[in-house]
Amino acid sequence: MALYVKKFGGSSVATPEKMRNIARRILSERQPGDQIVIVVSAMGDSTDDLLALASQVTKDHFGREMDMLLTTGEQVSIALMALTFQAMGVPAISLTAAQAGIIAEGAFSKADIVDVRPDRVFRELDAGKIVIVAGFQGVTSEGDVVTLGRGGSDTTAVALAGAMKADMCEIFTDVDGVYSADPRYVPDAVKIDEITNEEMLEMARLGAGVMQPKSVEMGMRYHIPIHVRSTFTKEAGTIIREETTMNHTQFAVRGVAQDAHIAKIAVLGVPNVPGMAYSVFNALAENHVSVDMIVQSIRSADTDKTDIIFTIDNNDLDEAKKVLEALKQEGGVPDVIYSDDKAKVSIVGAGMLGAPGIAARMFGALGRSGVNIDIISTSEISISCLIPRTDLTKAVQAIHKEFFGSEQA
Amino acid sequence: MALYVKKFGGSSVATPEKMRNIARRILSERQPGDQIVIVVSAMGDSTDDLLALASQVTKDHFGREMDMLLTTGEQVSIALMALTFQAMGVPAISLTAAQAGIIAEGAFSKADIVDVRPDRVFRELDAGKIVIVAGFQGVTSEGDVVTLGRGGSDTTAVALAGAMKADMCEIFTDVDGVYSADPRYVPDAVKIDEITNEEMLEMARLGAGVMQPKSVEMGMRYHIPIHVRSTFTKEAGTIIREETTMNHTQFAVRGVAQDAHIAKIAVLGVPNVPGMAYSVFNALAENHVSVDMIVQSIRSADTDKTDIIFTIDNNDLDEAKKVLEALKQEGGVPDVIYSDDKAKVSIVGAGMLGAPGIAARMFGALGRSGVNIDIISTSEISISCLIPRTDLTKAVQAIHKEFFGSEQA
Repeated sequence: MALYVKKFGGSSVATPEKMRNIARRILSERQPGDQIVIVVSAMGDSTDDLLALASQVTKDHFGREMDMLLTTGEQVSIALMALTFQAMGVPAISLTAAQAGIIAEGAFSKADIVDVRPDRVFRELDAGKIVIVAGFQGVTSEGDVVTLGRGGSDTTAVALAGAMKADMCEIFTDVDGVYSADPRYVPDAVKIDEITNEEMLEMARLGAGVMQPKSVEMGMRYHIPIHVRSTFTKEAGTIIREETTMNHTQFAVRGVAQDAHIAKIAVLGVPNVPGMAYSVFNALAENHVSVDMIVQSIRSADTDKTDIIFTIDNNDLDEAKKVLEALKQEGGVPDVIYSDDKAKVSIVGAGMLGAPGIAARMFGALGRSGVNIDIISTSEISISCLIPRTDLTKAVQAIHKEFFGSEQA
Repeated sequence: MALYVKKFGGSSVATPEKMRNIARRILSERQPGDQIVIVVSAMGDSTDDLLALASQVTKDHFGREMDMLLTTGEQVSIALMALTFQAMGVPAISLTAAQAGIIAEGAFSKADIVDVRPDRVFRELDAGKIVIVAGFQGVTSEGDVVTLGRGGSDTTAVALAGAMKADMCEIFTDVDGVYSADPRYVPDAVKIDEITNEEMLEMARLGAGVMQPKSVEMGMRYHIPIHVRSTFTKEAGTIIREETTMNHTQFAVRGVAQDAHIAKIAVLGVPNVPGMAYSVFNALAENHVSVDMIVQSIRSADTDKTDIIFTIDNNDLDEAKKVLEALKQEGGVPDVIYSDDKAKVSIVGAGMLGAPGIAARMFGALGRSGVNIDIISTSEISISCLIPRTDLTKAVQAIHKEFFGSEQA
């Protein structure tokens, strides 16, 4: 007897037939006494259809009225899902975010859940019903409906699981878990059975998709294990949970992540006086350009000049150029070199700190593959290398083989 | 400076282009200081689309989850309507029934508005916004969304106008008002400028469409004038208001109504003892068959026998047959004759009581046209005649000519 929150995304509920499949699966896996809360997104392309409708009246796709419009998508899903269970003779009820007590605040289209008051959810569960809650939405203290932004339905599920002290939050998706590397780069990547919230956050930050950081952070805050698994198979996926439950020495490196869209910017010959780095990075920040890796080195031959080298997302390169060329005009920086052909490969693992030689093994694997390392950066649970984009696949495969080779047998 | 509640039905908001037309019209007619609340239904066929979707998961089209599903239709309309105004640079906000304080109770799919708490509506109006409210829906004290049944958006508009003490509730529709007769029967029927709530209710009861009785009753209860007018022209339509404002002697007969779907049932030779009529009508009532006109006559040649003759809606005839044949089997009634080829023609006017000779003029018009009268029934403000269905058009035209002939010149 346990309390489960199960989240199904838009592609999992795209048609009435898919909804029936989900309902059958849930009923077949339910143990006597289990209480089930289901969080669903809008059906398949329905959000795109609503956006297309909105495009006929306005070019502005954000704000209160867009949220009012888009949240109908989840409301359709929850109603149909409840009707699906009822048609099978199983008591079920759908609840909007307002009815389920999902309280949110912040800007429309990207609000944050600030409180969950699941009284009604408990009451309906206690009445023996399967409860279906609209994902991706919240209600403000004024009673306005807001959407939660990308990955919002995952956040709904984890927040609800947290507030209800559920035994498990299951995120059903079209992949069957988190992998030791992106299978598009490493076909023999292995599914990770367990990963800590910190590792998952670091993987996401370093380029691994699957879960949005917001949901993972929420799972960490509420101490709720999150099971990421496939809608289409019954096999276990990846469980994201607090680190204390796992054996680290066995998995010093949890996974390999990569980001193919990195640009490198070198600001050369900057006067080595206080505040120079600040002026560069402040100008970028004011224009919403996020900087990732940073290296600053004093030229050995010319100690009053310094080079500042850093990386940004390739998509931000045009904006960064504008900012830096303006600085150059003002005489703030002497010369800038832009490279838009970089990539980043990283290893992540909470156990790396206690396992010496990990970094050396990573650099060795890259070296033997003939991959030059441009910049190295480290965090407590990760090591990242900037490399040429053309070497990315080779690099990911070499590193994965170094750390996971034995598991491929 | 006035407060208006304006309701637009599904066909009026069927496309973004039609929404723009409505917005342009409202803005062009708005006087400085006017406050505008708009009530809209779901766009065109969108309710049918949702029903088709529901049909794929269930055959049961009533209940909480169907209401959850269908109310998304109005939510889409209000959001798009608000976006339409915003795109024109006009502040506007959409409100669901819950946000607008439309409190309802009763069965799902046909709930009744029991209270309106328009605090938020007033607040948004005072902030200079046009407020767009979802029609056809209400919220229960438990926070459930319910629909109001047929004509529900009209009811929303009138209830809101009543609670807000609006100066006028305008119902925009695809006809340009209430007519002295159904134009399908009488092509030269004239638009009625003003009609009392009682007359309108009687017209509706006797077969004239246009407005659902629930909305008219609500207008009467809240003393709110209702202006039924065309979405497509700027001409005034028909104002439904309390009778004291109008001159009755001029319009003893306000209009002609007809109902083409009447069945007549004659229960013959019933023993003339107390309780016989009760046993017949009670059995029908228990099976939800509503009886309209009733005549009971004692046979002159056989004073211990009586004939009970009455009319019902043609659609209820099969059910009535079942009930009465069962009574016959039990020996409760000796013989029953069913006729499914009747129609009813009526005249309605609150001034008829004070204008003698009205009934005689009606019967005369029918007689000159060769229409036999089967049953006559009267109320304080109407006279109805049961006639053969094949004579209905002739009858409606003759009566209309008798009372409105002079206006056709």
